[in-house]
Amino acid sequence: MRMDSIDKLKRQVYEANLELKNKNLVVYTFGNVSGIDRKKEIIVIKPSGVPYENLNPEDMVSVDFHNNVLDGDKCPSSDTLTHIVLYKHFPSIGGVVHTHSTFATSWAQAKKPIPCLGTTHADYANRQIPCTQVISDKQIKGNYVEETGNQIIETFQNYSYEATPMVLVASHGPFTWGKDPDEAVYYSVILEELAKMAYLTMQINPHIEDIKQSLIDKHYNRKHGKNAYYGQKK
Amino acid sequence: MRMDSIDKLKRQVYEANLELKNKNLVVYTFGNVSGIDRKKEIIVIKPSGVPYENLNPEDMVSVDFHNNVLDGDKCPSSDTLTHIVLYKHFPSIGGVVHTHSTFATSWAQAKKPIPCLGTTHADYANRQIPCTQVISDKQIKGNYVEETGNQIIETFQNYSYEATPMVLVASHGPFTWGKDPDEAVYYSVILEELAKMAYLTMQINPHIEDIKQSLIDKHYNRKHGKNAYYGQKK
Amino acid sequence: MRMDSIDKLKRQVYEANLELKNKNLVVYTFGNVSGIDRKKEIIVIKPSGVPYENLNPEDMVSVDFHNNVLDGDKCPSSDTLTHIVLYKHFPSIGGVVHTHSTFATSWAQAKKPIPCLGTTHADYANRQIPCTQVISDKQIKGNYVEETGNQIIETFQNYSYEATPMVLVASHGPFTWGKDPDEAVYYSVILEELAKMAYLTMQINPHIEDIKQSLIDKHYNRKHGKNAYYGQKK
Amino acid sequence: MRMDSIDKLKRQVYEANLELKNKNLVVYTFGNVSGIDRKKEIIVIKPSGVPYENLNPEDMVSVDFHNNVLDGDKCPSSDTLTHIVLYKHFPSIGGVVHTHSTFATSWAQAKKPIPCLGTTHADYANRQIPCTQVISDKQIKGNYVEETGNQIIETFQNYSYEATPMVLVASHGPFTWGKDPDEAVYYSVILEELAKMAYLTMQINPHIEDIKQSLIDKHYNRKHGKNAYYGQKK
Repeated sequence: MRMDSIDKLKRQVYEANLELKNKNLVVYTFGNVSGIDRKKEIIVIKPSGVPYENLNPEDMVSVDFHNNVLDGDKCPSSDTLTHIVLYKHFPSIGGVVHTHSTFATSWAQAKKPIPCLGTTHADYANRQIPCTQVISDKQIKGNYVEETGNQIIETFQNYSYEATPMVLVASHGPFTWGKDPDEAVYYSVILEELAKMAYLTMQINPHIEDIKQSLIDKHYNRKHGKNAYYGQKK
Repeated sequence: MRMDSIDKLKRQVYEANLELKNKNLVVYTFGNVSGIDRKKEIIVIKPSGVPYENLNPEDMVSVDFHNNVLDGDKCPSSDTLTHIVLYKHFPSIGGVVHTHSTFATSWAQAKKPIPCLGTTHADYANRQIPCTQVISDKQIKGNYVEETGNQIIETFQNYSYEATPMVLVASHGPFTWGKDPDEAVYYSVILEELAKMAYLTMQINPHIEDIKQSLIDKHYNRKHGKNAYYGQKK
Repeated sequence: MRMDSIDKLKRQVYEANLELKNKNLVVYTFGNVSGIDRKKEIIVIKPSGVPYENLNPEDMVSVDFHNNVLDGDKCPSSDTLTHIVLYKHFPSIGGVVHTHSTFATSWAQAKKPIPCLGTTHADYANRQIPCTQVISDKQIKGNYVEETGNQIIETFQNYSYEATPMVLVASHGPFTWGKDPDEAVYYSVILEELAKMAYLTMQINPHIEDIKQSLIDKHYNRKHGKNAYYGQKK
Repeated sequence: MRMDSIDKLKRQVYEANLELKNKNLVVYTFGNVSGIDRKKEIIVIKPSGVPYENLNPEDMVSVDFHNNVLDGDKCPSSDTLTHIVLYKHFPSIGGVVHTHSTFATSWAQAKKPIPCLGTTHADYANRQIPCTQVISDKQIKGNYVEETGNQIIETFQNYSYEATPMVLVASHGPFTWGKDPDEAVYYSVILEELAKMAYLTMQINPHIEDIKQSLIDKHYNRKHGKNAYYGQKK
């Protein structure tokens, strides 16, 4: 039945939203997680401005690729159009997260990419975490939320969205994605930790540079390459 | 009955004071929240120097606009006159909070306004968070607590207290306000987070400047303007 | 009965030691609190190197002014002689605390006094929090622990120990004291918060200077002077 | 029976791994603890990539000195060969820990040893905490994990592994060791605190230098020398 798979997705998205709170990535109503049913092209996302403690699975809002609400009476997150742009352009992803987590947002506000300063970073992303350009006045006056998504796509023209599942939107904050809502939240937690350690590292040694590509590749491929050997055999 | 509405306000102010503790904005007896009954011109505020764990709703103290205690045997917060000045000059507010929260107080001690470095800030205030002048010796020798309120009013001569519901008192700490005690506490939590992110941002990039006005307006109006579209329809 | 008052003091010292743990000022066996029975000239202090979770009130060790153990089979804290020196020279104190709390210890390691940058500081101490000289080789080879106490006394020659109930021992960490063990712990919590805010303030504005004496006096006397008006009437 | 002692070790290693989580040194599956049965030359270590909340004592993996799995169907931690190198070269140790704890990893990423800036440090290590050289491309292409161990051994050629039970691997993170898994975890907690305080100290006073050797020796020997007098008599 149609609603069965969407109901399941709503529960998944609901739990992923609560996990944002459990991991201390959000205060009050900040942040939102979405998931997608690729066959039906239906996106499920947190409602706008509802406190986490009042959320229920059935409050999650279903929208199509044009941001039309498909069921219920709640308004979807005000960032929904950014999520939609990411789902359209990154075909293998199944979940998207936006937060204002403290350290990642501070790098975004500083308009700086997060340098790759250690193997912890290389375990999850094989390059710097990029930072978008500042949004133009024209984009602000146009469809601002959709343009935020377009900026991210622009930033990834020379980047693999699968090998770097995270981005900083300049003057705003981070977005992450993954194969499902859980993995997207997982990467938001990791990003915050990478952002914090990069911050501290730069304070200890302002002249530090990115680690060499051979070391990045070693670690990235250990977890993600064809010959990955981290974790248990599947 | 007269006491009914005041009793209700006392409970509201009591719970808002506890929330300061829950949100880790205060240690020991630091901090205080008040609320006002505009019709009766009665202000209800935390008693002075009582530990949060010993507080009860009926310990809250009622005072008039001249700081006369109207009931009970407790002394009101030593900062009460500052609250009164704010209620007198900011006619639409219903609650005031004072804390020594770590990051906001550090900006106040640094005698610097908090720059508007990102959309998180612009979601809540459409300008920098201003910092007052250092209080003069004449003011210190006069009615110090009332003069602290006067300094805040002076600082807001060219500011909208409704569009920037927070201030730093130089060498002292922050005050916030809102339509009721709960909202005033809400802004204290937000201010502390803005202060922390602005701190980190400046450490990452000391040359960063305030975001452009078009981006501030976009975010501020998204939540507060006539065409606000954040949250659920009321 | 003699043991009654000492048993009571042991429970007080025991609970004050646990409070250090509750307030996150210590890891593992770091830190120690003592109390004194002035009439009997008996000091009660935490045993050396016992984890907080294994402590019982009866494990507290009683010593005289020459560090002779008066009862039980436990060794007193290795810092006991420093406490004894403080009790001898600061006649009105009833409790002493030593911690390695993170921010206060960092100022001590930096060999810098904590500047008085705001009213939060002035509420508790009417000057900078002083930092001792680095201990001399001669003192290290002599009775090191007692000499640590002597350094503190030396540092307070031109300071009032009652108006500044805290000190940093250079390259080592903080000591605080008060009218009883509870108040000494209270000042350790306050010191850590002052140390953290002074750190952040200096990072935001490296050119900041101590607040003016008139403002310090206003706040200090509000809480401690003859005309103190903070708190409830006693 | 053979399995009795190994089963006991597995429980010990399991509990030490959970302690990493309790002490907030790890996120998700980061980090690993091992222990050794010196008589049987069997090492017990956490399985690779299993979340802490799903671990059971019997999931711990037994390996020999050539990293052959001796029982069960789980893969050992991907860092096992580094642990093995340490057990081979440091004959008196019984436990090894690897984490990506925030402050220690930031020093490792900054490629800087942690200076000895206070007595807290000297209580646990009688020199700076060394940082290895960056691993060479040749080592990366060879047996990377084993070479990480070799780098540590190289770094300790002029260091006592017993007097400094911790190291930073450049661009990577810390390793610690001790007489058993518990003590190795203990030193990871201490290292993180030393790393944090050294960071803060350098921010407060960038010109600070290591404390003098006489003070280091005094504190180190107080806890570890022949005439150690810290703690209770054994």
